[in-house]
Amino acid sequence: MQRQGKRTIVLTSKPSIVGNAAVVGKTEGEGPLKNEFDFIYDDDMLGEKSFEKAESALQKDAVMRALQRAGKLPENIDLILAGDLLNQNSASNFALRELGIPFVGLFGACSTMALTLGLASILVEAGAGRLAVAATSSHFCSAERQFRMPLEYGGQRSPSAQRTVTGAGASVISTHNADFPSVSAVTFGKIVDFGIRDATNMGAAMAPAAADTVSAFFADTNSDTDSFDYIITGDLGHIGSELMLELLQKDYGLDISSKHTDCGKMIFDRERQDTHAGGSGCGCSASVLNSYFINRLKTGEIKNILFIATGALMSPTTSLQGESIPSIAHLVSITKPDNVN
Amino acid sequence: MQRQGKRTIVLTSKPSIVGNAAVVGKTEGEGPLKNEFDFIYDDDMLGEKSFEKAESALQKDAVMRALQRAGKLPENIDLILAGDLLNQNSASNFALRELGIPFVGLFGACSTMALTLGLASILVEAGAGRLAVAATSSHFCSAERQFRMPLEYGGQRSPSAQRTVTGAGASVISTHNADFPSVSAVTFGKIVDFGIRDATNMGAAMAPAAADTVSAFFADTNSDTDSFDYIITGDLGHIGSELMLELLQKDYGLDISSKHTDCGKMIFDRERQDTHAGGSGCGCSASVLNSYFINRLKTGEIKNILFIATGALMSPTTSLQGESIPSIAHLVSITKPDNVN
Repeated sequence: MQRQGKRTIVLTSKPSIVGNAAVVGKTEGEGPLKNEFDFIYDDDMLGEKSFEKAESALQKDAVMRALQRAGKLPENIDLILAGDLLNQNSASNFALRELGIPFVGLFGACSTMALTLGLASILVEAGAGRLAVAATSSHFCSAERQFRMPLEYGGQRSPSAQRTVTGAGASVISTHNADFPSVSAVTFGKIVDFGIRDATNMGAAMAPAAADTVSAFFADTNSDTDSFDYIITGDLGHIGSELMLELLQKDYGLDISSKHTDCGKMIFDRERQDTHAGGSGCGCSASVLNSYFINRLKTGEIKNILFIATGALMSPTTSLQGESIPSIAHLVSITKPDNVN
Repeated sequence: MQRQGKRTIVLTSKPSIVGNAAVVGKTEGEGPLKNEFDFIYDDDMLGEKSFEKAESALQKDAVMRALQRAGKLPENIDLILAGDLLNQNSASNFALRELGIPFVGLFGACSTMALTLGLASILVEAGAGRLAVAATSSHFCSAERQFRMPLEYGGQRSPSAQRTVTGAGASVISTHNADFPSVSAVTFGKIVDFGIRDATNMGAAMAPAAADTVSAFFADTNSDTDSFDYIITGDLGHIGSELMLELLQKDYGLDISSKHTDCGKMIFDRERQDTHAGGSGCGCSASVLNSYFINRLKTGEIKNILFIATGALMSPTTSLQGESIPSIAHLVSITKPDNVN
């Protein structure tokens, strides 16, 4: 690999995504992407006894399906990189404990899919592992009670709030394979904090971090926004997306509006599903990337994308202590298979 | 780099630790290692308004001191890898937000120092960054109230309980430099769960994970325990250390007892300091490695070590839900500078 510009890591061997899977809950399965996912769970509990255990089951299911699609077993995998929103990353720790795969736990809040995918690709190119898995999950019910209110309270959600996606996504990364989409570059984000204190408006908190990483990538690589089919943010939602486009235009003279979409905007129908500012949670961008986008990259319907998952790095404790919301956005550049036109 | 055996990654270029620092709180500064640390804070609040903010200040201080020792500024650093015990990794997120360094957040509970150091070394060898920082922290007071009881409650601690270290450690990793200690191999841990449910006996929960990783390293590399000056576990403490030695002997026929020590045993005086089973927390192994051991490796007083930090991956929620404690241990092999005999 080689560094390009200040922050971008170009993966010269182009590790490939040879397996991908996305599983979601009922509400996500009633949204615009319902035909994209590998499986939709009608029961948000997945037959488990707690929301937290259900989230672990969801993540494990995404990992097992991605492995199956890649024709691999857990014992074929050298490294698994995963993280989630639950305290002490417990959804991942418990999801993966039976797989017996060397484990790197990551925390990037809702940016986790780009963080795990980018790092897994770097590790495979470097030779630290021949096959690696990148995974993450989130669950509406486990997130609500940890970050906000017990569901039983029936609290009203603010119009700027996003809905945590019940979903999980996983990708299996191997050395280059011309039949599968490949990762060509990674730009890790810096922590950016514009002083937003409203934890019900995370899109606004995350927008500056997304603008920082996107602009860094274009500055580093001297590439043109026109050379990408899509520039996809993780889960800025409706409010954060607008703010990011405005920041990119004003502060960096960069207009990506014709290429931009956002997983948080795509996953729910804003009018019909009463999901306010859109979807959020690690599972939002993970499930949209590992279904809609990677499947279309595989067929060549989409040639290349920039995937920028965004995360708000506060905790309930830091918010109660009056702190603002530091945010981060990691970028992964993905291209169609060499063997597909 | 090249993989050796099933799980070990040999770093053929041997990235070097060109800066290291450890800062601790008052109790740690009254222990047997009091003359080793870079700074001892008499005030566990570090002049901040909350324990959580104090922990962030502690971690930032360790990072800034390690940078200073390396003669570097934050803008010279390509990547910083950090994590901690607080929910959503908030000690790290808030400690590092002003530094403007691309950030990879990790979660490995008390195994974090080996996880960040091992991964940073791999990334530097791979060329993902020329200079990287690995850091972590823990704080007795922020950990107690998050994981156990408010301090004001004055709860009695069980004899098998360990005391979370108030401390932080940081290492600056560069491409090979013959004047500094170097990282020669990394073995990432698997999640191991022997069904221990007692969160006041984490040493017992973590011992099988440590035995698994240590035995994997020796099997992978065919090396002899005699070729290392020290085999150092992170924070198994007095109880976990004994259990690990027993497991290694019984299950793997491996006797490391003459080489073994444990950061959790070293940092407190068991008799004099009433710290029960020893120290724990990410900051325990981080502060002991980045003072006592790296300083002695630098002078050649110690030739080589295996550093195996151990983490218990439960959360208070999973324990309340009756779950057992999955654990993990990551291993980093460190050698003295080439230019020192």
